[in-house]
Amino acid sequence: MNPNKYLKHIAFDNVIFGYSNQKLQVLVMEYHNTGLFALPGGFVAKDENLQDAAKRGLKERTGLDQIYLEQFHTFGSVARHQAEVMQTIINSNPWIDGDASWLLERFISVAHYALINILEVTPTPDALSDSCGWYDVRALPSLILDHSEIIEKALKTLQQNLNTKLVGANLLPEKFTMKELQGVYEAIFNEKLHRGTFQRKMLSYGQLERFEKQFSGGAHKAPYVYSFKSDTEV
Amino acid sequence: MNPNKYLKHIAFDNVIFGYSNQKLQVLVMEYHNTGLFALPGGFVAKDENLQDAAKRGLKERTGLDQIYLEQFHTFGSVARHQAEVMQTIINSNPWIDGDASWLLERFISVAHYALINILEVTPTPDALSDSCGWYDVRALPSLILDHSEIIEKALKTLQQNLNTKLVGANLLPEKFTMKELQGVYEAIFNEKLHRGTFQRKMLSYGQLERFEKQFSGGAHKAPYVYSFKSDTEV
Repeated sequence: MNPNKYLKHIAFDNVIFGYSNQKLQVLVMEYHNTGLFALPGGFVAKDENLQDAAKRGLKERTGLDQIYLEQFHTFGSVARHQAEVMQTIINSNPWIDGDASWLLERFISVAHYALINILEVTPTPDALSDSCGWYDVRALPSLILDHSEIIEKALKTLQQNLNTKLVGANLLPEKFTMKELQGVYEAIFNEKLHRGTFQRKMLSYGQLERFEKQFSGGAHKAPYVYSFKSDTEV
Repeated sequence: MNPNKYLKHIAFDNVIFGYSNQKLQVLVMEYHNTGLFALPGGFVAKDENLQDAAKRGLKERTGLDQIYLEQFHTFGSVARHQAEVMQTIINSNPWIDGDASWLLERFISVAHYALINILEVTPTPDALSDSCGWYDVRALPSLILDHSEIIEKALKTLQQNLNTKLVGANLLPEKFTMKELQGVYEAIFNEKLHRGTFQRKMLSYGQLERFEKQFSGGAHKAPYVYSFKSDTEV
């Protein structure tokens, strides 16, 4: 936490969405001995592109790179400056070396979101946190600062993007059934969708590749499986 | 330019779009005696919300408030740090008082765009600039730093927004014909649109109010005039 390494006043926060158990989940960190929950985030080094900083943060927490990370909004209200919250975190991490006073100043945060496959990830806490876990986006713990608002806006952006293009390849295994894809959409919109309408809409984007049914040996018809075409923007 | 008044490393830039002569125009500033052109922008005071700073900048240059200003992207590459450009501007404004060295450091810029009615505005240069004028978005002078890229992304965002909702009330007088509205869209997309298709699409948004034709006294049929319904998001 060398105070000379990072740009002052600028932070990033990552809303990392995953999907499991028919639920849209978000990666949340808990700070050592404070009971404070927060989005994974960090600072921008003086010689680092903003986008690279956010990607670095994603990689540090998930081990993943090559993941689409979308910058969606920058949060810069004065109200998000709550020095006492950061002071609590610093006090609980007595090993923080050097002058930590820059952490108590006001930060604006450039927020990004990413969609990842939970099964590919073992979440890793950062040095300030003792845990890092998945939470149902509709049953989150109370979060510090404006982090709940950041997640809400990320979800809204994701929903808007889904209305105009097919998104979400990263939330599923490489091959999936139409029913599994519908499960993702229902989790994101938090509502049941009509099967026929959904299938027609998905196919209309022209981004799905369908594979031949495999012989299942069972009495029931095997469903088609699909994958996203390789040029799909995800 | 009191160095203690503003947050370091954070700037805002405003892409102010107007419409006239069938062209989409952008407000551009020219710095005193430098030949350098730039977007109007500024800094965020330590006790000021980011959004309020951008609104203040819009008001200072156009006199307008109550205008919808959309934050669309934050630009934070290392490459946009070009201290020599800022040094040139400082050198050409010898009256800049106090320590100006903070202006030579790296800034990330939170970019916003606004749509305004050119007829309502007399552009006002800031203290560092000697002029401030409208330029065709497709015939811009060479701009400093990444300002051309900022305008390009603003235009792309505007185009995307137009594909899903009706935008642009502020670019036109209160009442307008369908042909005038089509002119705005053609300027934004830089292509001719089909009249019938355009009209059907615009009416399908349910955001236009149609007024009865007025007796024109002429031989030709007067066109309908429209206005945006008052709850339209603009």
